[in-house]
Amino acid sequence: MSARGSVASLARRCLATTARPVVRGDFSEITAGDLETFTSILGDPKHVVTDADDLLPFNRDWMNKYEGKSRLALRPKTTEEVSRIMRHCSERNLAVVPQGGNTGLVGGSVPVFDEVVVSMARMDEIRSIDPLAGVMVCQAGCILQHLDETLAREGLMMPLDLGAKGSCHIGGNISTNAGGIRYLRYGSLHGSVLGLEVVLASGEILDVLKPLRKDTTGYDLKQLFIGAEGTLGLVTAAAIHCPPRPKAKNATFLSCDSFPRVLETFRRAKADLGEILSAFEFLDKESLDLATRTFADVKNPLEGSSDGFYVLIETSGSDEAHDAEKLQSFLESSLEAGAITNGAVAQDVTQFRAFWRVREGVPEALNTHGAMYKYDLSVPQAQMYDLVEETRDRVGGMAYTVGYGHLGDGNLHLNCVADAYSDELSSRIEPFVYERTAELGGSVSAEHGLGQMKASCIGYTKSDSAVEMMKLVKRTFDPKGILNPYKVLPSSN
Amino acid sequence: MSARGSVASLARRCLATTARPVVRGDFSEITAGDLETFTSILGDPKHVVTDADDLLPFNRDWMNKYEGKSRLALRPKTTEEVSRIMRHCSERNLAVVPQGGNTGLVGGSVPVFDEVVVSMARMDEIRSIDPLAGVMVCQAGCILQHLDETLAREGLMMPLDLGAKGSCHIGGNISTNAGGIRYLRYGSLHGSVLGLEVVLASGEILDVLKPLRKDTTGYDLKQLFIGAEGTLGLVTAAAIHCPPRPKAKNATFLSCDSFPRVLETFRRAKADLGEILSAFEFLDKESLDLATRTFADVKNPLEGSSDGFYVLIETSGSDEAHDAEKLQSFLESSLEAGAITNGAVAQDVTQFRAFWRVREGVPEALNTHGAMYKYDLSVPQAQMYDLVEETRDRVGGMAYTVGYGHLGDGNLHLNCVADAYSDELSSRIEPFVYERTAELGGSVSAEHGLGQMKASCIGYTKSDSAVEMMKLVKRTFDPKGILNPYKVLPSSN
Repeated sequence: MSARGSVASLARRCLATTARPVVRGDFSEITAGDLETFTSILGDPKHVVTDADDLLPFNRDWMNKYEGKSRLALRPKTTEEVSRIMRHCSERNLAVVPQGGNTGLVGGSVPVFDEVVVSMARMDEIRSIDPLAGVMVCQAGCILQHLDETLAREGLMMPLDLGAKGSCHIGGNISTNAGGIRYLRYGSLHGSVLGLEVVLASGEILDVLKPLRKDTTGYDLKQLFIGAEGTLGLVTAAAIHCPPRPKAKNATFLSCDSFPRVLETFRRAKADLGEILSAFEFLDKESLDLATRTFADVKNPLEGSSDGFYVLIETSGSDEAHDAEKLQSFLESSLEAGAITNGAVAQDVTQFRAFWRVREGVPEALNTHGAMYKYDLSVPQAQMYDLVEETRDRVGGMAYTVGYGHLGDGNLHLNCVADAYSDELSSRIEPFVYERTAELGGSVSAEHGLGQMKASCIGYTKSDSAVEMMKLVKRTFDPKGILNPYKVLPSSN
Repeated sequence: MSARGSVASLARRCLATTARPVVRGDFSEITAGDLETFTSILGDPKHVVTDADDLLPFNRDWMNKYEGKSRLALRPKTTEEVSRIMRHCSERNLAVVPQGGNTGLVGGSVPVFDEVVVSMARMDEIRSIDPLAGVMVCQAGCILQHLDETLAREGLMMPLDLGAKGSCHIGGNISTNAGGIRYLRYGSLHGSVLGLEVVLASGEILDVLKPLRKDTTGYDLKQLFIGAEGTLGLVTAAAIHCPPRPKAKNATFLSCDSFPRVLETFRRAKADLGEILSAFEFLDKESLDLATRTFADVKNPLEGSSDGFYVLIETSGSDEAHDAEKLQSFLESSLEAGAITNGAVAQDVTQFRAFWRVREGVPEALNTHGAMYKYDLSVPQAQMYDLVEETRDRVGGMAYTVGYGHLGDGNLHLNCVADAYSDELSSRIEPFVYERTAELGGSVSAEHGLGQMKASCIGYTKSDSAVEMMKLVKRTFDPKGILNPYKVLPSSN
């Protein structure tokens, strides 16, 4: 059922591939003739970016971890323009990187060599909103937060929410199959995305954009592009199912004295809060301490508490009084049963935000360190914290290890931070973290994708037969391999 | 965005294809050697069915509408056996029909000619249930209702429910991408199915069965098999996300004096009932009359009402008192605003069942007629009832036309019943219903699939580029075309 049996061999393969430097594919290089063609497609030379300084934000990811050497970024406005760009790239054998808000964490949206960047930033139109059906159709370059604000005026909301919402694009969210904090309630984009418009490697426009909740006419092709990180096609527009915006929101911040008690609290939250539970986040003491130490505006809502674990629960519902009553009853019974040691309920919007600020402060605080080993893992809930403790033991005093994340979805963010990277530290963490995750039947990327960072590690999560089938699908959709090369699949491809 | 522009040409193509008889593919015929091989794979000759009488239930669908001529049905118990069967069929170029509970409505699960039936009925084991994560792993031949009853003991439920639950298999549900009455609340199987184990046409086992909520390592291959009707692979096992079983359930039966008022009632239900809304079904007066006339145990809960439209709303939640309060407040404001003319709330389980009996009685009553033209359509909600009225006008006195269905999901069940089929009546209904659905941007199959009935009609819903891409995917997964031939894609394939 899992790749468990063959973990050792997979590990060796993964390391070997990682060690081998990625080699530029046999793609053409940009010529003056290409620039002329692209300028004629886009109409205005300012959308054909060739200046080295102007190219920097297209070449470099926001963590400053990955930097490509592209000499060309294109900024189309319409699907037709994207189609003409791809037709030309296909004919000329030019490699392409689709780029959304460039907020990814695995180097998936920046070039590795000199791939042409196709930025979706100008494709930011909302085509339609149907308030009754709760369906929005928009271009791929729309910014997540802007979409959510627009939907708010219709009493609707986006079915996903994440830290980068102020700059990430919906097309990038879809291509990464982004998760975020309300996944527990609103589920996967595989359920929420009703339709897509995609430009294929050949330039052909694949129109499966019908904004219907139900449609069983043939294969659901759009699903392949959700999470394909732009390697099978460029998502240019999407139809999204948007739930009603809740009238009431609440949050509670709790402490638990052991991880099993965190799990017990989750079990109780599912039973008692049921349909109003919209987030269940946990953080260990080390995470909380790091955030409060780093930022003056992050405060432990349970001041003086020295328990090992903290939980942030959010509820969303249609009746404030009912929600408050459910929350109160859940807290009382959880305290009485000893699942939690203490708890605070947000009394107003300021406190609600302060609770979330604690959770959001953790990744921000991690970013302030010289070296950060960042893992986004799916692990069965019962074993989740064992992995954190085992990693902490292995790194000893060489790094500060924290575990937090979307417990409700089995999604652990495991991080080790230090002043500087070192081979000794690296070897203590990897491949241990990946191997252990594989042994537990988990995933080495829960919601960040594989990009260039983890392309060679896919074997830890996926069976050989699945990877072979993925390569076949890649060849079917992109026979020349021009779409976002060196990403997702091992480069032996 | 839709296939609207080319509806006329698509219509012509569809009719032409329908008119052309399907021709048997160039597959091998069963030999004594094949039977020996299959008997050795399955161990016991009783799982290799060759007797003509015994084959009848495998050859004929439950509506007695489709009947194949298979001379062989195989009843494997394990994935390994299915794999060996497919390996042999692939080598010998034998065509195969995977068969679940055989409750489909489009002839997708019975042979057209002499395809080998692979019945999943013996593959009925539940492999694991994780009550905390809410994840079940089971074999494809498990019966939906049995799964739901087993989950009930863990406080969980299946995320789908449909009329055929007592005999349909989960593997068939997945292969059809079945919808049902709680889709509105729990969404699509594309969101609920976490993993699949699939035997490919070659006999290779594709293992993407990890029971993880989140996993972004490569292409989500399992999605392709959801709704592929067994034409890309045989689903042998599934990991399914199962929501907590609600503690409280309620139902209300309402009347509205126009279809716009039904829509207004839906808008109000979404706003007022929000997270506890678990079904929103509508039926027209003609549907209700038919059911009450046909069955003595079906009674209009609003006796004496002569309004044109009826709505059945179900709520599910974690607190009975809260749910009742929300329902009461919704009903009062809806009455006051004139959205509904009357309403009854179920006072006990008996009434709850009686309300649902009305809704379930409609398709059952339709089945009692000599000729039934049955359409399962996705149509934008605002235009949904126009289609019923236009169809009723066209058939005039030749048939009795009813419209009902899952309004919350934009899913209309449109039916015309008469004493007997006639060319005149047929030509009044088709291709009109398909053409009009296409014009409205809808789907000609919302939740029943295409099977053999509608394989030639895919062009009404899907663009040419999508159908071409589907054919390419089919060739990639099943190069010899041995898996469930003559279904889903037009036979020109």
